[in-house]
Amino acid sequence: MNEYMQHKVSLINEALSHLYSEKTALNAVLADSMNYSLKAGGKRLRPVMLMAAADAVGANGDKYVRIACAMEMIHTYSLIHDDLPAMDNDDYRRGKLTNHKVYGDAMAVLAGDALLTMAFEVIASEHAVDPSVLLRISLEISRAAGPEGMVGGQALDLSAENRHIELDELRKLHSAKTGALFRAAIRTGGILAKADQNELASLTRYADEFGLAFQITDDILDVIGDDEKIGKPVGSDEKNHKSTYVSLLSLSEARKMAEKSIANAVEALEPFGSKAEFLRGLVKKLLDRQN
Amino acid sequence: MNEYMQHKVSLINEALSHLYSEKTALNAVLADSMNYSLKAGGKRLRPVMLMAAADAVGANGDKYVRIACAMEMIHTYSLIHDDLPAMDNDDYRRGKLTNHKVYGDAMAVLAGDALLTMAFEVIASEHAVDPSVLLRISLEISRAAGPEGMVGGQALDLSAENRHIELDELRKLHSAKTGALFRAAIRTGGILAKADQNELASLTRYADEFGLAFQITDDILDVIGDDEKIGKPVGSDEKNHKSTYVSLLSLSEARKMAEKSIANAVEALEPFGSKAEFLRGLVKKLLDRQN
Repeated sequence: MNEYMQHKVSLINEALSHLYSEKTALNAVLADSMNYSLKAGGKRLRPVMLMAAADAVGANGDKYVRIACAMEMIHTYSLIHDDLPAMDNDDYRRGKLTNHKVYGDAMAVLAGDALLTMAFEVIASEHAVDPSVLLRISLEISRAAGPEGMVGGQALDLSAENRHIELDELRKLHSAKTGALFRAAIRTGGILAKADQNELASLTRYADEFGLAFQITDDILDVIGDDEKIGKPVGSDEKNHKSTYVSLLSLSEARKMAEKSIANAVEALEPFGSKAEFLRGLVKKLLDRQN
Repeated sequence: MNEYMQHKVSLINEALSHLYSEKTALNAVLADSMNYSLKAGGKRLRPVMLMAAADAVGANGDKYVRIACAMEMIHTYSLIHDDLPAMDNDDYRRGKLTNHKVYGDAMAVLAGDALLTMAFEVIASEHAVDPSVLLRISLEISRAAGPEGMVGGQALDLSAENRHIELDELRKLHSAKTGALFRAAIRTGGILAKADQNELASLTRYADEFGLAFQITDDILDVIGDDEKIGKPVGSDEKNHKSTYVSLLSLSEARKMAEKSIANAVEALEPFGSKAEFLRGLVKKLLDRQN
């Protein structure tokens, strides 16, 4: 992790504890359960990207750390609900017990609900940003996380289980399930930094290509990765009869597709010059990711 | 149901279908599942109260029907998640199969998540209201629905299962679990209607007393009600070893407490004169409720 990333991540972690300690949670177990997953060692990719997108447009992204945290809360809630026995039924994530294994299914449902709700509270209570901008962001993020975005993608994923799907459908599924939140993070950073229309279009293109490359390399990792580094067993996609970029293409074809997306993402950042150095490096590193 | 209520309910039902049909839901099953619960015969109490509170302050509450629908989406999501096997494990609600009995647990989790998320999208996309007011409302509603409000109350409820609790704790639990959303509905109507500080304080007092009376009469209904009219078996609280106002007091004491709350609620409405006629009637009818 380079210095830029380290700086952002520590800002985010500090802001998360601060946001959280401000709460007089009604129930200590609920608070613990929310905290457990927020602090379960996530890479903070989405909030860092939000702040980095603002930097790329020439603003100071660090100012938007609270809104970046809202993004992380939504990501975290989605993981908690995804891991539930009713959903993917996963016992481990990032090498730690999943939320429901520690707090029980009921509390895990509530912790997810609470984190999702709190994300919108965090956005609405941001004092340093103009209300009309905050409202636009609230709309951007709710659309990305809702039935036309992330949750819609999860529903598509459910319907696709144990069924062969084609590449087009796989792409649509992931564009919603994981892509929408990357797009919202990057676009939110751009909107906060008052990006003009062209800049926002470039950032959006970057985010979309990033999301695609992220998913393809995720599928590759599930085949060739290291259990310990991923934090869950390798080969789980095949075991669960999931269609992936690797199963629909081949390992080398999937790798080529990821390379193409990464090149497109880098190209999209051209207008931002050196201000987008971090985002450029981030997408390039996807092919070498180990978790 | 009187004419005033009928008018509001039909506005709400129409707006709900409209809001929904605007969506190109990514997945048809998810859309059906959301729709199923939105249309499962709820009384639309919270959205009607939101609009009626605006009327009481002298605005035209009908204008705020979309925001009222957001309130109903949050209420509906909370019922879907509450009914899950991991939570209360209820098979019926309002005499119909619960969401997860029809669509499965996984889709029910997602439908709840989608409705909660969409509520904030609906608020953020309201064109007829000033952004700073919408942001204030988004904050009001997210606080009421989150870990310090409704979800916090549900977590308290979980922790209280099979354990004797005192009246103070029961009151705190319900003030969060069901009271917070009534309060947010009423206060949101007031804020939209540009209520002054005194008016908002009166409305808040009304909402809190309404919420208390609602819960006490709910507990009474569970003892003396009619299965068919409630839509679920009578006596379920006792069966589930739940502390209620009836179990901690007595039927007649609980009734007296509800009467006191209703009187307080009516008193709180005094400053609004005849403009609050509907809200006055609504709280008075709680003692005669049959479902």
